[in-house]
Amino acid sequence: MTQFTIVVDCNDPQYTREICAAFALFPEVKAVLPEEPAAREAQYACCWFPDPQLLARSPQLKLIQAASAGVDHLPASVFASDVPLCRVVDEDFRHGMFEYALWGVLWFQRRFDRALAHQRERVWKMYPQRAAADYHVGVMGLGEIGGYIASQLAALGYRVSGWARSEKSLAGVRCYHGETQAGEFLGQLDALINVLPLTGETRGILAHPLLQQLPDGASLINCGRGEHMVNQDVLEALDSGKLSGAVLDVFPVEPLPQEDPLWQHPQVAITPHMASIAQTEVIARQLLDNIRRQQQALPLKNLVNKRSGY
Amino acid sequence: MTQFTIVVDCNDPQYTREICAAFALFPEVKAVLPEEPAAREAQYACCWFPDPQLLARSPQLKLIQAASAGVDHLPASVFASDVPLCRVVDEDFRHGMFEYALWGVLWFQRRFDRALAHQRERVWKMYPQRAAADYHVGVMGLGEIGGYIASQLAALGYRVSGWARSEKSLAGVRCYHGETQAGEFLGQLDALINVLPLTGETRGILAHPLLQQLPDGASLINCGRGEHMVNQDVLEALDSGKLSGAVLDVFPVEPLPQEDPLWQHPQVAITPHMASIAQTEVIARQLLDNIRRQQQALPLKNLVNKRSGY
Repeated sequence: MTQFTIVVDCNDPQYTREICAAFALFPEVKAVLPEEPAAREAQYACCWFPDPQLLARSPQLKLIQAASAGVDHLPASVFASDVPLCRVVDEDFRHGMFEYALWGVLWFQRRFDRALAHQRERVWKMYPQRAAADYHVGVMGLGEIGGYIASQLAALGYRVSGWARSEKSLAGVRCYHGETQAGEFLGQLDALINVLPLTGETRGILAHPLLQQLPDGASLINCGRGEHMVNQDVLEALDSGKLSGAVLDVFPVEPLPQEDPLWQHPQVAITPHMASIAQTEVIARQLLDNIRRQQQALPLKNLVNKRSGY
Repeated sequence: MTQFTIVVDCNDPQYTREICAAFALFPEVKAVLPEEPAAREAQYACCWFPDPQLLARSPQLKLIQAASAGVDHLPASVFASDVPLCRVVDEDFRHGMFEYALWGVLWFQRRFDRALAHQRERVWKMYPQRAAADYHVGVMGLGEIGGYIASQLAALGYRVSGWARSEKSLAGVRCYHGETQAGEFLGQLDALINVLPLTGETRGILAHPLLQQLPDGASLINCGRGEHMVNQDVLEALDSGKLSGAVLDVFPVEPLPQEDPLWQHPQVAITPHMASIAQTEVIARQLLDNIRRQQQALPLKNLVNKRSGY
């Protein structure tokens, strides 16, 4: 059996080890860490927020696979190189995004946000609870992900509205579209979930003009793209009481910089771009499949167009 | 219209105010706070963890309604008195319990527990994610609440097992029963949800002998009864790594005492007995219904038997 070496560079040592463990199920693979001498000889790389020196440290790479659907976290040198770049598409990703959004909805609806804040102060304090049918969730973006999230939330009994650029129809979901209906959509929500695609029109959409259209005390869940959000405007909305809280998975700069005031804001829950993370087994299987395809000169799966960036 | 006075004493000022607001929809009601002079003349009381001096401060009470399904939080003087005591039964309570349990499952499955702990340290750190189908949830207690929770989790794609004292059958749920099958049930779980009824046999069941049968690193969600749990054993299981975390809504003594080490344990999320809390509108409507029934000498709804305590 021909053995080959994959360098695994996935930001965090434990996460990297778990991905190595997924590769260990395949005897033909030698998975190594970037700091091991064998990394210099690696033909393949599996990355998530890797060392910017990835290509210099592993100069023989023939294929790079991002351990994620997005590839924004890769250094510019990867995009400038000739090494093919693939991403992972986990078919369960819609459900994973839904689970993330649902956790955020429950966090606000059932007042876990308050309960866990009170826990730090050893305070036993009850808040009135809202039934799902009385909790109005809005989903901005009704494509494959947003449509699924909206429908699943409606099936769990929430009052759900959705908004998209063009007209949509979804069972159990009141659908709005276009700029003219955005105000009516936003003005009634308890919680807003953003899963819009990133385009020139949606970049920076989670900013003052949109946030001001929400009712006072609404909550924001952003598991779309970091570039949708203007951090300073979200902070001001939190401090003015326009927003009562935010669950944020994505940020204009990732990892979120140490000095960013969002980290320590008491009404903000921050997660490390994990809403749609692929399972380690799926990551390993898709890279191995592409290695075999490359060896047999077949087209690579989920190859990234380095110009468009996806 | 005959007006009557209800004293509202629900532990927390904000929660109390929200319940008063629910009564404000009924013009025949004058809702007062316990510290107001009019509380002395109140004929009715709506309570949750009230002042132990409730009956001394409002000596003319003809009916006391707990703002909850459980009545453990009421002072002994209420049970010793002749004043009828009713509880609130919100028909949505099964779904509310499910929402609570689901939030706890997502908290552990999707590693929100780790992400929010890292947030405090401004650490951006990824953990491998588990798909629902690979996450094994066990529900202990398969009555009206537990059966609903287990079925709903299975419908969301989780691998679900259930355990009850006697044999049960539920679509999509692997059911175990009796002492002899408890070990097999427990030994395979990622997360254990307790919603057993409180009986002589189940009191103190969440203790060392049971916890040791879980796999290392399992998670515990207790939204059953506080008396199911031996706090010290849960703490030891957390510190030994047997449990990786706990989401706890109920405690042997409530409110959880200030000095209890559970409050500040980094792997414990504490909520103030809120899993099945009734909506304020439901609380108000049920007390008003009982007031009318008492005025017309009809049987009271959800009257508590003060000997059995439910």
